[in-house]
Amino acid sequence: MTPADSGPEGTRPPPTRRRPGGRTARIRQQVLDAVVAELGEHGYDGLTTDAVAARAGVHRATVYRRWGDVGGLLADVLDAASDDDWQPPDTGSLESDLAALNQEIYAALTAQPPIMAALIAASFRSEKAAQAQQRLWEDRYARCEIIVSRAVRHGELPPRTDARQLLIAATAPLYHQLVLLRATPDPQLPGHAARTAALAAAAGSFAEPPSARDA
Amino acid sequence: MTPADSGPEGTRPPPTRRRPGGRTARIRQQVLDAVVAELGEHGYDGLTTDAVAARAGVHRATVYRRWGDVGGLLADVLDAASDDDWQPPDTGSLESDLAALNQEIYAALTAQPPIMAALIAASFRSEKAAQAQQRLWEDRYARCEIIVSRAVRHGELPPRTDARQLLIAATAPLYHQLVLLRATPDPQLPGHAARTAALAAAAGSFAEPPSARDA
Repeated sequence: MTPADSGPEGTRPPPTRRRPGGRTARIRQQVLDAVVAELGEHGYDGLTTDAVAARAGVHRATVYRRWGDVGGLLADVLDAASDDDWQPPDTGSLESDLAALNQEIYAALTAQPPIMAALIAASFRSEKAAQAQQRLWEDRYARCEIIVSRAVRHGELPPRTDARQLLIAATAPLYHQLVLLRATPDPQLPGHAARTAALAAAAGSFAEPPSARDA
Repeated sequence: MTPADSGPEGTRPPPTRRRPGGRTARIRQQVLDAVVAELGEHGYDGLTTDAVAARAGVHRATVYRRWGDVGGLLADVLDAASDDDWQPPDTGSLESDLAALNQEIYAALTAQPPIMAALIAASFRSEKAAQAQQRLWEDRYARCEIIVSRAVRHGELPPRTDARQLLIAATAPLYHQLVLLRATPDPQLPGHAARTAALAAAAGSFAEPPSARDA
Protein backbone atom coordinates (compact mmCIF):
# COMPACT_ATOMS: atom_id res chain seq x y z
CA MET A 1 0.00 0.00 0.00
CA THR A 2 2.95 2.27 0.61
CA PRO A 3 6.21 2.74 -1.23
CA ALA A 4 9.49 1.57 0.21
CA ASP A 5 10.06 4.16 2.85
CA SER A 6 6.58 5.47 3.41
CA GLY A 7 5.95 3.69 6.67
CA PRO A 8 5.84 5.82 9.78
CA GLU A 9 9.15 7.67 10.00
CA GLY A 10 11.75 5.91 12.06
CA THR A 11 10.10 2.54 12.37
CA ARG A 12 12.76 0.95 10.20
CA PRO A 13 16.37 2.02 10.09
CA PRO A 14 17.41 2.83 6.50
CA PRO A 15 20.32 0.33 6.39
CA THR A 16 17.93 -2.64 6.36
CA ARG A 17 16.79 -1.47 2.91
CA ARG A 18 20.24 -2.11 1.52
CA ARG A 19 20.61 -5.71 0.69
CA PRO A 20 23.86 -7.51 0.19
CA GLY A 21 24.77 -8.10 -3.41
CA GLY A 22 27.82 -6.06 -4.19
CA ARG A 23 28.31 -3.45 -6.83
CA THR A 24 25.24 -4.17 -8.95
CA ALA A 25 22.91 -3.95 -5.98
CA ARG A 26 24.67 -0.82 -4.77
CA ILE A 27 24.32 0.90 -8.13
CA ARG A 28 20.66 -0.05 -8.26
CA GLN A 29 20.09 1.47 -4.84
CA GLN A 30 21.94 4.67 -5.79
CA VAL A 31 19.91 5.01 -8.97
CA LEU A 32 16.56 4.30 -7.31
CA ASP A 33 17.34 6.75 -4.49
CA ALA A 34 18.15 9.33 -7.16
CA VAL A 35 14.84 8.67 -8.96
CA VAL A 36 12.90 9.21 -5.73
CA ALA A 37 14.85 12.39 -4.94
CA GLU A 38 14.41 13.80 -8.46
CA LEU A 39 10.73 12.89 -8.48
CA GLY A 40 10.22 14.57 -5.12
CA GLU A 41 11.98 17.73 -6.25
CA HIS A 42 10.79 18.07 -9.83
CA GLY A 43 7.82 15.76 -10.30
CA TYR A 44 7.33 13.56 -13.34
CA ASP A 45 7.79 16.39 -15.80
CA GLY A 46 11.27 17.16 -14.50
CA LEU A 47 12.40 13.56 -14.27
CA THR A 48 15.02 12.55 -16.85
CA THR A 49 17.36 9.60 -17.07
CA ASP A 50 20.29 12.02 -17.44
CA ALA A 51 19.45 13.85 -14.21
CA VAL A 52 19.02 10.53 -12.41
CA ALA A 53 22.40 9.27 -13.69
CA ALA A 54 24.12 12.50 -12.65
CA ARG A 55 22.57 12.48 -9.20
CA ALA A 56 23.38 8.81 -8.66
CA GLY A 57 26.98 9.32 -9.85
CA VAL A 58 26.46 6.57 -12.41
CA HIS A 59 27.28 6.67 -16.10
CA ARG A 60 24.21 7.56 -18.17
CA ALA A 61 24.87 4.56 -20.45
CA THR A 62 24.43 2.31 -17.42
CA VAL A 63 21.06 3.82 -16.70
CA TYR A 64 19.89 3.58 -20.32
CA ARG A 65 21.11 0.00 -20.62
CA ARG A 66 19.55 -1.25 -17.42
CA TRP A 67 16.36 0.79 -17.07
CA GLY A 68 15.72 2.10 -20.59
CA ASP A 69 13.67 5.16 -19.78
CA VAL A 70 11.89 7.08 -17.06
CA GLY A 71 9.06 4.54 -17.05
CA GLY A 72 11.55 1.74 -16.44
CA LEU A 73 13.14 3.67 -13.59
CA LEU A 74 9.78 4.36 -11.94
CA ALA A 75 8.71 0.75 -12.36
CA ASP A 76 11.88 -0.41 -10.62
CA VAL A 77 11.31 2.03 -7.73
CA LEU A 78 7.84 0.56 -7.30
CA ASP A 79 9.04 -3.03 -7.65
CA ALA A 80 11.82 -2.40 -5.13
CA ALA A 81 9.22 -1.12 -2.68
CA SER A 82 7.77 -4.63 -2.39
CA ASP A 83 11.18 -6.01 -1.60
CA ASP A 84 10.92 -5.33 2.10
CA ASP A 85 9.54 -6.98 5.21
CA TRP A 86 6.62 -4.62 5.75
CA GLN A 87 3.75 -6.07 7.71
CA PRO A 88 0.48 -4.37 8.56
CA PRO A 89 0.03 -3.09 12.13
CA ASP A 90 -1.14 -5.62 14.73
CA THR A 91 -2.94 -3.66 17.43
CA GLY A 92 -5.50 -6.09 18.82
CA SER A 93 -8.74 -5.32 17.00
CA LEU A 94 -10.01 -5.04 13.45
CA GLU A 95 -10.94 -1.38 13.69
CA SER A 96 -7.68 -0.29 15.29
CA ASP A 97 -5.62 -2.37 12.85
CA LEU A 98 -7.43 -0.70 9.95
CA ALA A 99 -7.01 2.72 11.57
CA ALA A 100 -3.27 2.16 12.03
CA LEU A 101 -2.97 0.97 8.42
CA ASN A 102 -4.89 4.03 7.25
CA GLN A 103 -2.60 6.26 9.29
CA GLU A 104 0.36 4.86 7.35
CA ILE A 105 -1.38 5.44 4.04
CA TYR A 106 -2.45 8.94 5.10
CA ALA A 107 1.10 9.79 6.17
CA ALA A 108 2.45 8.54 2.85
CA LEU A 109 -0.16 10.39 0.78
CA THR A 110 0.38 13.68 2.61
CA ALA A 111 4.17 13.44 2.97
CA GLN A 112 6.48 16.19 1.77
CA PRO A 113 7.99 15.79 -0.73
CA PRO A 114 4.95 13.96 -2.12
CA ILE A 115 6.71 10.83 -3.39
CA MET A 116 3.76 8.47 -3.21
CA ALA A 117 1.41 10.99 -4.82
CA ALA A 118 4.00 11.56 -7.56
CA LEU A 119 4.36 7.81 -8.16
CA ILE A 120 0.60 7.43 -8.46
CA ALA A 121 0.47 10.42 -10.82
CA ALA A 122 3.30 8.87 -12.84
CA SER A 123 1.23 5.71 -13.24
CA PHE A 124 -1.11 7.80 -15.44
CA ARG A 125 1.84 8.75 -17.66
CA SER A 126 3.78 5.54 -18.06
CA GLU A 127 2.34 2.11 -18.71
CA LYS A 128 5.40 0.48 -17.11
CA ALA A 129 4.91 2.55 -13.97
CA ALA A 130 1.19 1.74 -13.98
CA GLN A 131 1.84 -1.99 -14.09
CA ALA A 132 4.44 -1.75 -11.32
CA GLN A 133 2.06 0.36 -9.20
CA GLN A 134 -0.58 -2.35 -9.65
CA ARG A 135 1.91 -5.04 -8.58
CA LEU A 136 2.85 -3.00 -5.49
CA TRP A 137 -0.78 -2.48 -4.48
CA GLU A 138 -1.49 -6.18 -5.04
CA ASP A 139 1.47 -7.05 -2.80
CA ARG A 140 0.36 -4.62 -0.07
CA TYR A 141 -3.29 -5.67 -0.10
CA ALA A 142 -2.26 -9.34 -0.03
CA ARG A 143 -0.05 -8.72 3.01
CA CYS A 144 -2.91 -6.84 4.71
CA GLU A 145 -5.24 -9.82 4.48
CA ILE A 146 -3.75 -11.01 7.77
CA ILE A 147 -5.64 -8.17 9.48
CA VAL A 148 -8.87 -9.85 8.43
CA SER A 149 -7.75 -13.39 9.21
CA ARG A 150 -6.73 -12.29 12.73
CA ALA A 151 -10.17 -10.72 13.22
CA VAL A 152 -11.76 -13.97 12.06
CA ARG A 153 -9.58 -15.93 14.50
CA HIS A 154 -10.57 -13.59 17.33
CA GLY A 155 -14.23 -14.10 16.53
CA GLU A 156 -14.71 -10.50 15.36
CA LEU A 157 -15.73 -11.58 11.87
CA PRO A 158 -17.42 -14.63 10.35
CA PRO A 159 -15.00 -17.22 8.88
CA ARG A 160 -16.00 -16.52 5.29
CA THR A 161 -15.19 -12.84 5.03
CA ASP A 162 -14.04 -11.24 1.78
CA ALA A 163 -10.79 -9.78 3.08
CA ARG A 164 -9.95 -7.85 -0.08
CA GLN A 165 -13.32 -6.10 -0.28
CA LEU A 166 -13.10 -5.16 3.37
CA LEU A 167 -9.59 -3.74 2.93
CA ILE A 168 -10.64 -1.80 -0.18
CA ALA A 169 -13.63 -0.33 1.65
CA ALA A 170 -11.40 0.73 4.55
CA THR A 171 -8.68 2.34 2.45
CA ALA A 172 -10.48 3.63 -0.67
CA PRO A 173 -11.82 6.85 0.93
CA LEU A 174 -8.25 7.98 1.66
CA TYR A 175 -7.11 7.52 -1.92
CA HIS A 176 -10.32 9.05 -3.25
CA GLN A 177 -10.16 12.14 -1.04
CA LEU A 178 -6.42 12.73 -1.22
CA VAL A 179 -5.44 11.54 -4.71
CA LEU A 180 -8.52 12.13 -6.87
CA LEU A 181 -10.62 14.76 -5.10
CA ARG A 182 -7.46 16.48 -3.80
CA ALA A 183 -9.34 17.45 -0.65
CA THR A 184 -7.63 19.25 2.19
CA PRO A 185 -6.19 16.45 4.36
CA ASP A 186 -8.48 15.72 7.29
CA PRO A 187 -6.67 14.01 10.19
CA GLN A 188 -9.97 12.34 11.16
CA LEU A 189 -10.13 10.55 7.82
CA PRO A 190 -7.95 7.48 8.56
CA GLY A 191 -9.83 6.60 11.74
CA HIS A 192 -13.22 7.36 10.30
CA ALA A 193 -12.74 5.25 7.19
CA ALA A 194 -11.51 2.39 9.39
CA ARG A 195 -14.54 2.69 11.65
CA THR A 196 -16.94 2.74 8.68
CA ALA A 197 -15.44 -0.45 7.25
CA ALA A 198 -15.40 -2.16 10.66
CA LEU A 199 -19.06 -1.26 11.29
CA ALA A 200 -20.07 -2.51 7.85
CA ALA A 201 -18.07 -5.69 8.45
CA ALA A 202 -19.79 -6.25 11.81
CA ALA A 203 -23.12 -5.82 10.02
CA GLY A 204 -22.17 -8.61 7.61
CA SER A 205 -21.27 -6.56 4.54
CA PHE A 206 -18.23 -8.64 3.62
CA ALA A 207 -19.53 -12.05 4.66
CA GLU A 208 -19.42 -14.42 1.73
CA PRO A 209 -22.43 -16.62 1.13
CA PRO A 210 -21.87 -20.26 2.14
CA SER A 211 -20.49 -22.22 -0.78
CA ALA A 212 -22.27 -25.14 -2.40
CA ARG A 213 -20.11 -27.52 -0.34
CA ASP A 214 -21.75 -26.30 2.86
CA ALA A 215 -25.28 -26.65 1.54
CA MET B 1 -19.62 12.57 -10.57
CA THR B 2 -19.95 11.89 -14.28
CA PRO B 3 -19.04 13.95 -17.32
CA ALA B 4 -21.72 15.51 -19.48
CA ASP B 5 -22.94 12.51 -21.33
CA SER B 6 -21.91 9.73 -19.04
CA GLY B 7 -25.32 9.08 -17.54
CA PRO B 8 -26.97 5.84 -18.58
CA GLU B 9 -27.15 5.79 -22.37
CA GLY B 10 -30.35 7.13 -23.79
CA THR B 11 -31.77 8.76 -20.68
CA ARG B 12 -31.29 12.21 -22.19
CA PRO B 13 -31.62 13.01 -25.87
CA PRO B 14 -28.45 14.74 -27.10
CA PRO B 15 -30.25 17.89 -28.36
CA THR B 16 -30.99 19.02 -24.78
CA ARG B 17 -27.22 19.49 -24.34
CA ARG B 18 -27.23 22.20 -26.96
CA ARG B 19 -28.28 25.43 -25.40
CA PRO B 20 -29.55 28.45 -27.22
CA GLY B 21 -26.96 31.17 -27.64
CA GLY B 22 -26.17 31.40 -31.31
CA ARG B 23 -22.87 31.09 -33.03
CA THR B 24 -20.58 31.36 -30.00
CA ALA B 25 -22.42 28.63 -28.12
CA ARG B 26 -22.55 26.49 -31.23
CA ILE B 27 -18.82 26.80 -31.82
CA ARG B 28 -18.14 25.94 -28.18
CA GLN B 29 -20.27 22.82 -28.49
CA GLN B 30 -18.53 21.77 -31.72
CA VAL B 31 -15.12 22.26 -30.14
CA LEU B 32 -15.96 20.45 -26.90
CA ASP B 33 -17.51 17.56 -28.83
CA ALA B 34 -14.29 17.39 -30.86
CA VAL B 35 -12.17 17.34 -27.67
CA VAL B 36 -14.17 14.43 -26.30
CA ALA B 37 -13.97 12.54 -29.59
CA GLU B 38 -10.21 13.12 -29.94
CA LEU B 39 -9.62 12.18 -26.32
CA GLY B 40 -11.63 9.00 -26.74
CA GLU B 41 -9.74 8.04 -29.89
CA HIS B 42 -6.20 9.10 -29.05
CA GLY B 43 -6.02 9.74 -25.29
CA TYR B 44 -4.27 12.72 -23.76
CA ASP B 45 -1.03 12.11 -25.62
CA GLY B 46 -2.74 12.38 -28.99
CA LEU B 47 -4.81 15.42 -28.10
CA THR B 48 -3.74 18.64 -29.84
CA THR B 49 -5.47 21.96 -30.32
CA ASP B 50 -4.89 21.66 -34.06
CA ALA B 51 -6.60 18.29 -34.29
CA VAL B 52 -9.51 19.61 -32.22
CA ALA B 53 -9.86 22.67 -34.46
CA ALA B 54 -9.77 20.53 -37.59
CA ARG B 55 -12.33 18.08 -36.25
CA ALA B 56 -14.63 20.84 -35.07
CA GLY B 57 -14.35 22.66 -38.42
CA VAL B 58 -13.25 25.79 -36.58
CA HIS B 59 -10.25 27.98 -37.33
CA ARG B 60 -7.27 27.08 -35.15
CA ALA B 61 -6.83 30.74 -34.18
CA THR B 62 -10.30 30.63 -32.63
CA VAL B 63 -9.35 27.63 -30.51
CA TYR B 64 -6.03 29.16 -29.39
CA ARG B 65 -7.69 32.51 -28.59
CA ARG B 66 -10.57 31.08 -26.62
CA TRP B 67 -9.10 27.98 -24.92
CA GLY B 68 -5.34 28.57 -25.05
CA ASP B 69 -4.14 25.00 -24.88
CA VAL B 70 -5.15 21.39 -24.34
CA GLY B 71 -5.53 22.01 -20.58
CA GLY B 72 -7.96 24.84 -21.27
CA LEU B 73 -9.96 22.65 -23.64
CA LEU B 74 -10.17 19.81 -21.12
CA ALA B 75 -11.12 22.21 -18.34
CA ASP B 76 -13.97 23.56 -20.47
CA VAL B 77 -15.22 20.04 -21.23
CA LEU B 78 -15.33 19.37 -17.50
CA ASP B 79 -16.93 22.72 -16.68
CA ALA B 80 -19.54 22.20 -19.39
CA ALA B 81 -20.39 18.85 -17.81
CA SER B 82 -21.80 20.64 -14.76
CA ASP B 83 -24.00 22.76 -16.99
CA ASP B 84 -26.80 20.25 -17.12
CA ASP B 85 -29.84 19.25 -15.12
CA TRP B 86 -28.50 15.95 -13.80
CA GLN B 87 -30.04 14.75 -10.59
CA PRO B 88 -29.14 11.60 -8.67
CA PRO B 89 -31.52 8.63 -8.94
CA ASP B 90 -34.56 8.63 -6.64
CA THR B 91 -35.53 5.00 -6.10
CA GLY B 92 -37.13 4.95 -2.65
CA SER B 93 -34.36 3.86 -0.28
CA LEU B 94 -30.86 4.93 0.68
CA GLU B 95 -29.21 1.70 -0.42
CA SER B 96 -30.97 1.52 -3.76
CA ASP B 97 -30.31 5.23 -4.46
CA LEU B 98 -26.61 4.67 -3.77
CA ALA B 99 -26.62 1.51 -5.88
CA ALA B 100 -28.24 3.35 -8.79
CA LEU B 101 -25.75 6.21 -8.44
CA ASN B 102 -22.89 3.72 -8.38
CA GLN B 103 -24.27 2.05 -11.50
CA GLU B 104 -24.00 5.38 -13.31
CA ILE B 105 -20.43 5.88 -12.11
CA TYR B 106 -19.52 2.29 -12.99
CA ALA B 107 -21.00 2.69 -16.47
CA ALA B 108 -19.05 5.91 -16.99
CA LEU B 109 -15.78 4.46 -15.70
CA THR B 110 -16.04 1.34 -17.85
CA ALA B 111 -17.47 3.01 -20.99
CA GLN B 112 -15.81 2.63 -24.40
CA PRO B 113 -14.25 4.88 -25.45
CA PRO B 114 -13.07 5.59 -21.90
CA ILE B 115 -13.83 9.32 -21.82
CA MET B 116 -14.25 9.64 -18.07
CA ALA B 117 -11.14 7.59 -17.33
CA ALA B 118 -9.22 9.72 -19.86
CA LEU B 119 -10.46 12.95 -18.24
CA ILE B 120 -9.37 11.72 -14.81
CA ALA B 121 -5.99 10.68 -16.23
CA ALA B 122 -5.70 14.11 -17.87
CA SER B 123 -6.19 15.73 -14.48
CA PHE B 124 -2.78 14.28 -13.55
CA ARG B 125 -1.26 16.03 -16.57
CA SER B 126 -2.82 19.46 -16.58
CA GLU B 127 -3.40 21.68 -13.58
CA LYS B 128 -6.29 23.42 -15.37
CA ALA B 129 -7.95 20.06 -16.00
CA ALA B 130 -7.30 19.02 -12.39
CA GLN B 131 -9.04 22.10 -11.03
CA ALA B 132 -11.97 21.64 -13.38
CA GLN B 133 -12.24 17.96 -12.43
CA GLN B 134 -12.36 19.01 -8.77
CA ARG B 135 -15.13 21.53 -9.55
CA LEU B 136 -17.12 18.87 -11.39
CA TRP B 137 -16.80 16.37 -8.53
CA GLU B 138 -17.76 19.05 -6.02
CA ASP B 139 -20.83 19.84 -8.12
CA ARG B 140 -21.83 16.18 -8.42
CA TYR B 141 -21.30 15.34 -4.74
CA ALA B 142 -23.26 18.47 -3.74
CA ARG B 143 -26.16 17.41 -5.96
CA CYS B 144 -26.04 13.89 -4.47
CA GLU B 145 -26.55 15.15 -0.94
CA ILE B 146 -30.29 15.02 -1.61
CA ILE B 147 -29.99 11.21 -1.45
CA VAL B 148 -28.99 11.55 2.19
CA SER B 149 -31.52 14.26 3.05
CA ARG B 150 -34.30 12.09 1.59
CA ALA B 151 -33.13 9.16 3.73
CA VAL B 152 -33.16 11.43 6.78
CA ARG B 153 -36.70 12.59 5.90
CA HIS B 154 -37.83 8.97 5.55
CA GLY B 155 -36.39 8.14 8.96
CA GLU B 156 -33.68 5.88 7.51
CA LEU B 157 -30.88 8.01 8.94
CA PRO B 158 -30.48 10.29 11.96
CA PRO B 159 -31.02 14.02 11.24
CA ARG B 160 -27.37 14.91 11.74
CA THR B 161 -25.73 12.70 9.15
CA ASP B 162 -22.55 13.70 7.35
CA ALA B 163 -23.85 13.41 3.80
CA ARG B 164 -20.53 13.97 2.09
CA GLN B 165 -18.68 11.31 4.07
CA LEU B 166 -21.45 8.83 3.40
CA LEU B 167 -21.37 9.57 -0.34
CA ILE B 168 -17.57 9.29 -0.43
CA ALA B 169 -17.70 5.94 1.38
CA ALA B 170 -20.31 4.65 -1.09
CA THR B 171 -18.52 5.75 -4.24
CA ALA B 172 -14.79 5.61 -3.36
CA PRO B 173 -14.39 1.83 -3.86
CA LEU B 174 -15.47 2.21 -7.52
CA TYR B 175 -12.89 4.88 -8.26
CA HIS B 176 -10.24 3.01 -6.29
CA GLN B 177 -10.82 -0.31 -8.01
CA LEU B 178 -11.38 0.99 -11.53
CA VAL B 179 -9.16 4.09 -11.75
CA LEU B 180 -6.24 3.42 -9.40
CA LEU B 181 -6.06 -0.36 -8.96
CA ARG B 182 -7.26 -0.88 -12.56
CA ALA B 183 -9.01 -4.05 -11.45
CA THR B 184 -11.10 -6.09 -13.85
CA PRO B 185 -14.58 -4.50 -13.65
CA ASP B 186 -16.82 -6.50 -11.31
CA PRO B 187 -20.53 -5.92 -11.98
CA GLN B 188 -21.22 -6.65 -8.30
CA LEU B 189 -19.11 -3.70 -7.23
CA PRO B 190 -21.68 -0.85 -7.53
CA GLY B 191 -24.30 -2.67 -5.46
CA HIS B 192 -21.83 -3.99 -2.96
CA ALA B 193 -20.21 -0.63 -2.26
CA ALA B 194 -23.69 0.89 -1.86
CA ARG B 195 -24.70 -1.83 0.58
CA THR B 196 -21.51 -1.41 2.62
CA ALA B 197 -22.08 2.34 2.97
CA ALA B 198 -25.77 1.85 3.82
CA LEU B 199 -24.94 -0.75 6.49
CA ALA B 200 -22.28 1.50 8.03
CA ALA B 201 -24.73 4.41 7.94
CA ALA B 202 -27.40 2.34 9.67
CA ALA B 203 -24.79 1.46 12.32
CA GLY B 204 -24.22 5.17 12.93
CA SER B 205 -20.92 5.65 11.13
CA PHE B 206 -21.86 9.00 9.58
CA ALA B 207 -23.92 10.39 12.46
CA GLU B 208 -22.49 13.69 13.60
CA PRO B 209 -22.18 14.26 17.32
CA PRO B 210 -24.80 16.67 18.69
CA SER B 211 -23.55 20.24 18.51
CA ALA B 212 -23.01 22.43 21.59
CA ARG B 213 -26.43 24.02 20.95
CA ASP B 214 -28.15 20.74 21.72
CA ALA B 215 -26.25 20.13 24.94
